[in-house]
Amino acid sequence: MVSTLPEIGFCGLGAMGGGMARHLVKSGFCVKGYDLYSPLIDRLVAAGGKAAASPADAATNVDFLILMVVNNVQADAVLFDPKRGAVPALRDNGVIILCSTTPPKYLFELRAHLDVVRPDVRLLDCPVSGGSIRAANGELSIFSAGADEDFKCSQAVLEALAGPLYRIPGGISMGSVAKMCHQHQAATNIIMASEAMGLAAVAGLNTMAVYEQICKSNGRSWMFENRGPHMLANDWLTVHSAVSIILKDNTIVTNHAKEVGFPLVLENTAEQLYITGTHAGFTKEDDAGLVRLYLPSDKKDLVGQLTKSVTTGAGDADIAVETIIDLFAGVHLASARECMSFAKHVGMDLIVLEDIINKGAGASAMFEIAVPQMISSGTLSLKSVKEAVEVRDKLELAIRKAEKLHQPVPMAAAALQQIYYDMAA
Amino acid sequence: MVSTLPEIGFCGLGAMGGGMARHLVKSGFCVKGYDLYSPLIDRLVAAGGKAAASPADAATNVDFLILMVVNNVQADAVLFDPKRGAVPALRDNGVIILCSTTPPKYLFELRAHLDVVRPDVRLLDCPVSGGSIRAANGELSIFSAGADEDFKCSQAVLEALAGPLYRIPGGISMGSVAKMCHQHQAATNIIMASEAMGLAAVAGLNTMAVYEQICKSNGRSWMFENRGPHMLANDWLTVHSAVSIILKDNTIVTNHAKEVGFPLVLENTAEQLYITGTHAGFTKEDDAGLVRLYLPSDKKDLVGQLTKSVTTGAGDADIAVETIIDLFAGVHLASARECMSFAKHVGMDLIVLEDIINKGAGASAMFEIAVPQMISSGTLSLKSVKEAVEVRDKLELAIRKAEKLHQPVPMAAAALQQIYYDMAA
Repeated sequence: MVSTLPEIGFCGLGAMGGGMARHLVKSGFCVKGYDLYSPLIDRLVAAGGKAAASPADAATNVDFLILMVVNNVQADAVLFDPKRGAVPALRDNGVIILCSTTPPKYLFELRAHLDVVRPDVRLLDCPVSGGSIRAANGELSIFSAGADEDFKCSQAVLEALAGPLYRIPGGISMGSVAKMCHQHQAATNIIMASEAMGLAAVAGLNTMAVYEQICKSNGRSWMFENRGPHMLANDWLTVHSAVSIILKDNTIVTNHAKEVGFPLVLENTAEQLYITGTHAGFTKEDDAGLVRLYLPSDKKDLVGQLTKSVTTGAGDADIAVETIIDLFAGVHLASARECMSFAKHVGMDLIVLEDIINKGAGASAMFEIAVPQMISSGTLSLKSVKEAVEVRDKLELAIRKAEKLHQPVPMAAAALQQIYYDMAA
Repeated sequence: MVSTLPEIGFCGLGAMGGGMARHLVKSGFCVKGYDLYSPLIDRLVAAGGKAAASPADAATNVDFLILMVVNNVQADAVLFDPKRGAVPALRDNGVIILCSTTPPKYLFELRAHLDVVRPDVRLLDCPVSGGSIRAANGELSIFSAGADEDFKCSQAVLEALAGPLYRIPGGISMGSVAKMCHQHQAATNIIMASEAMGLAAVAGLNTMAVYEQICKSNGRSWMFENRGPHMLANDWLTVHSAVSIILKDNTIVTNHAKEVGFPLVLENTAEQLYITGTHAGFTKEDDAGLVRLYLPSDKKDLVGQLTKSVTTGAGDADIAVETIIDLFAGVHLASARECMSFAKHVGMDLIVLEDIINKGAGASAMFEIAVPQMISSGTLSLKSVKEAVEVRDKLELAIRKAEKLHQPVPMAAAALQQIYYDMAA
């Protein structure tokens, strides 16, 4: 049986791209894949795809060229390498679908480069979110920006890959802006999972029971629910998402904010903690392993914390599961405010972003509670959030309890200061 | 009388460069100066210098070309502009003395560029520190790196400009590394001056009396002594050093640290506060005006705080001058540790750096007390500093008092967390 669906070239067959390409094959598309690491090509072929010998080969005789490489440097190499690059091989009016996470301004640089060498080639800005499992199941969040006619002709391909398929107005770069704003929440929430579980462990709480209770509380986040089990398994070497990946995505956010002169205290604090993890040698390990930054040097795992109570911690700090919930809630509240203020500054539609985050990996209970109140007030201030004073006061108390153990909670400490700034303004 | 001293071309006659060039004239050198803003050239001429019509003109028939432009982008323009650039005009084996603060790696880029177009031209890496008054008096700290023979032939010129003239080993870029490490202390201490005085004012203390007592205490720093009077005068528009300058220098530190994968939590927190100041519209004003970030919106100056006590603050927070001292001491201690650990990581000689900072604008009482203990322990850990536990405990208490007023102290909060990390490691 010959497929009647469009033919697709696919460059970048890693944890995300490999699953996406195989899912396209499963969905009936003819997919020709390329990766620098040839076993990844073999895996696509075993799933029914075709092997491409180079990016140029992947781009030959296809309707769409999808890029899921690590960053914009790799994208440039795939597209413009003088000998093996994809762009010269593309059909007239061929469509490039860039799914990699890149700085928003890269889309303009890429378009300008194409305009010189191949002005006929079309470009869609389509970063994704959701992780490798949703990638393999065709259930990614996709943030699609670009010309309407380019989107329409690509819609069948994007729908095959997407759970929620967002159409972001404003032209290319705004898809990457949406991803960047979402990534702000992902980055603060990932490290916060380590900070809070580190405190729970050091306080001697039953970390498994804490995990379960947090997931039902106002301290919950998508990232904590997702990373918690890896932490509790003390399994840092099975890499679901490496420290290097969240650091790379985080750096896109902090660099963009610096370029537009916007302060992001929490996001930069998170970035420094990822760099602390890198400096400690964790770069290629799973980001759940960052919990080790918060554990004493003689105890670099969470094992052995499974039998104790969740209501009475060690020492006189009186730490209980409620303390951990309060720490999460305070940071998620401050982070939600920082994210939405930044999003407004960079011209992102706040209602669309709220929906993206609530349905995506950046979700948290406090974001869901606070953001509607912030948006409807028109100011985005925490003063418009009726729970804010209580969350702030509980965060103060939780930090004080961590202090009694001399246990670092840098995200919580930074969040409290930002809440003071915001509520005084 | 004809001068027998070498002739000097000078590009960049602003707050720093103008004073340096005029001081060279006063010292007997023949100086030909250029600036984009011609009144600055007129001022040099009025002081006995000569006017150059372009960077190329400034470089013609001189023995040394000194650059004191704002950054590496301006340095490239001055040196390599195709029509007016200085490099083609330089004599055989001419010497460029780069006094601007640039990223350390720029020195390598500049040398590589020179090697292509003028390999005979010699380059000294000579960033300075000390501010415009010391510049005009020939009393700058100069961090000189480069080949010994280039240094020797330039020594008379450098000595005319310098108070302490440091010879930094390791070749070009290491002068800029020394300046970068010094700037770490400058950047954390400048914003800390605002944070602490903001708390004093909000607590209702007599800010003038607080200033005087801090300057005699273990909370003192060169930057606070220098910036305090501007703050107390509520005079942000007389610009001694603009927010844009410290933000630029700070960014050199944070970018370099990211490139080498080293965490600098305090320096990045400081940078976010400078960006907060930029976002508030203070970019071109004096950095002492950042104290306004810490004042309530109905009270954007320190006037009216001169008649109250230094021992009893407002409300029930029990804030006194000792609280402010403790806040300073805690941040300076954590910052000293961060600075020295970074310096070690980038290969800076720690003994030389200690001397530079103690004699420079990055000086503080806690740096002076703690760093000898850190160095002699070999670990640089705060556990080697006998005052550390007391400073930490007092910092905790000071932060708690600020909390009662809901007054943000983000540097102090970040510092305390870093002290916990360091002392647990």
